[in-house]
Amino acid sequence: MEHSEPPILSAHLSSIFPEDSRHSLRESVLPTLLTSITGVAKALRSSQKVSQVGTANAFGDDQLNVDVIAENSIRDAIKKCPSIVTASSEEDPVERQAEHDPATKDDQVKESYTIAFDPLDGSSIIAPNWTVGTIIGIWDGSTALGQDIETKQIASILGVVGPRTTAIVALRIPDSSISTCFEVALDDGKNIEVLRPHVRFQESAEINTRYFAPANLRAAAEEEKYMELITHFISCKYTLRYSGGLVPDIAHALVKGHGIYISPVTGKSKAKLRKLYEVAPIALIVECAGGSAIDPQDGSRILGKIIGDVDERAGLVCGTKEEVEVVREKLGL
Amino acid sequence: MEHSEPPILSAHLSSIFPEDSRHSLRESVLPTLLTSITGVAKALRSSQKVSQVGTANAFGDDQLNVDVIAENSIRDAIKKCPSIVTASSEEDPVERQAEHDPATKDDQVKESYTIAFDPLDGSSIIAPNWTVGTIIGIWDGSTALGQDIETKQIASILGVVGPRTTAIVALRIPDSSISTCFEVALDDGKNIEVLRPHVRFQESAEINTRYFAPANLRAAAEEEKYMELITHFISCKYTLRYSGGLVPDIAHALVKGHGIYISPVTGKSKAKLRKLYEVAPIALIVECAGGSAIDPQDGSRILGKIIGDVDERAGLVCGTKEEVEVVREKLGL
Repeated sequence: MEHSEPPILSAHLSSIFPEDSRHSLRESVLPTLLTSITGVAKALRSSQKVSQVGTANAFGDDQLNVDVIAENSIRDAIKKCPSIVTASSEEDPVERQAEHDPATKDDQVKESYTIAFDPLDGSSIIAPNWTVGTIIGIWDGSTALGQDIETKQIASILGVVGPRTTAIVALRIPDSSISTCFEVALDDGKNIEVLRPHVRFQESAEINTRYFAPANLRAAAEEEKYMELITHFISCKYTLRYSGGLVPDIAHALVKGHGIYISPVTGKSKAKLRKLYEVAPIALIVECAGGSAIDPQDGSRILGKIIGDVDERAGLVCGTKEEVEVVREKLGL
Repeated sequence: MEHSEPPILSAHLSSIFPEDSRHSLRESVLPTLLTSITGVAKALRSSQKVSQVGTANAFGDDQLNVDVIAENSIRDAIKKCPSIVTASSEEDPVERQAEHDPATKDDQVKESYTIAFDPLDGSSIIAPNWTVGTIIGIWDGSTALGQDIETKQIASILGVVGPRTTAIVALRIPDSSISTCFEVALDDGKNIEVLRPHVRFQESAEINTRYFAPANLRAAAEEEKYMELITHFISCKYTLRYSGGLVPDIAHALVKGHGIYISPVTGKSKAKLRKLYEVAPIALIVECAGGSAIDPQDGSRILGKIIGDVDERAGLVCGTKEEVEVVREKLGL
């Protein structure tokens, strides 16, 4: 049985956007940032000594190399995109005006974007050689702070750096009907191929296996409601998959078409995830795939919020709508 | 602060083996099999469409490609090693006489080995791009069946295919003092570097974070003792890391220096792991790193057994000695 070749990114984006709209986003920002994730993958492959990070045998001076190389790969991409006017990252969490390569200067650029990114998420699982990733949020305008997430964060990217290099991209453009999520293959910087043009959580009737990913499970020792929630998922025979890396854990749910991720906040267990670099971009991807993302402190929708500072933290409950409602009920949100 | 370059494999093996002993194992079998794992990694990187495996959107004809390429990469390595006289794999589970490239024929070879391997373990997590791996057991003589595992399985390899390509190697040679476990970096087939010359579980007093990996957690819904064990680890604030891939789960424990992996066997939940291709090689690695590996059906030591058939299955409890004893007690073994 023959099958057609997968489409490349540019053709896929042309099918999504009306002609002439968001020219810089389509032709410059998205392809350049996606390509930069291959730089993160190469940095990891060529930095075998990072395997020592976080272990008793650390070499010491090599500990941060791979974080720095990953950060630089994305900063270099930003320099090539004249429409990216502001950037901040978990490694350098200050919104600064973006610098650009003089060669890429373009007076015709009418769009302006702010980038907020976590260049290498999952530091605790780099040493054992587990899949890690990159998270990027793309915002309309010159800042992400004090803005309505819903209307201003118009795209996000989950770069998944494992045996292969892939990425899941979400787009939701205000004043248009565009709301989509798709997966691409990043094969060392050549053509970016679209692996799945529509990443969607499955409908309840289609689901064969239900997955759960309970973050910070130790909090269940102190919080009875969280323990009861865990027991509920075990009793209902959900399959456990929990890597401890936010990117692989969310990517697993999206690729499998089912999953619920819970990073709780309890009396003794504080909010761990950064709203700007982790929670907001993930929430957009999950919603664009037909799922739901809420704050476990008050049950409110993540995308309905405003982020006031780069360092704000939150928990996260996200995945299929059905399971998010189960968590809401069991945790009394 | 400067540090010395990591040693390469050949120098490390020379430091382990007395001169002239196990010449083929050192010079041919181990380096050739380790190099073949880079072939598995390349197969995955060049097979982006395997991301469809196990999902509703499967391309169909691509489903098995990557398994076949991985199998062939290791079969090609076997052909280059005249001392490998027999081989079988989870993909082709029949012990057959190994074929060799005529160019590699060597009448001087005095050793003879049997190879039992799982070329690509973790098929359920290939699609979401999580770390997977290769498992290889190396046995003295012309068969692995009906043999004493303890004295005949003299080496095993865990190939870890993630953002990087690494492997953990165990050696335990009867009638010698050799019993060791080390980690190597497989950087696309160039020199094989030794990342950690001694992979060891930490002593109890050194442990900061304790990890647990409960496989087949759904069995806890039916088996009260397994549920109580899980609750015990949560109450004692163990950190959860469970990928659902045997190779990454074991590699995590070994690299972190702590961990307990439990694949239980209960009334309704059958033994899942193949003894020859999964359980025996993992047990050797865990013991050589100072840990313990037992059968959850009777509490017996895995390496004290004999495997009668390629298809025999078992559960597995392995990790630090201390935690294996906790599991033994809680499950009443």
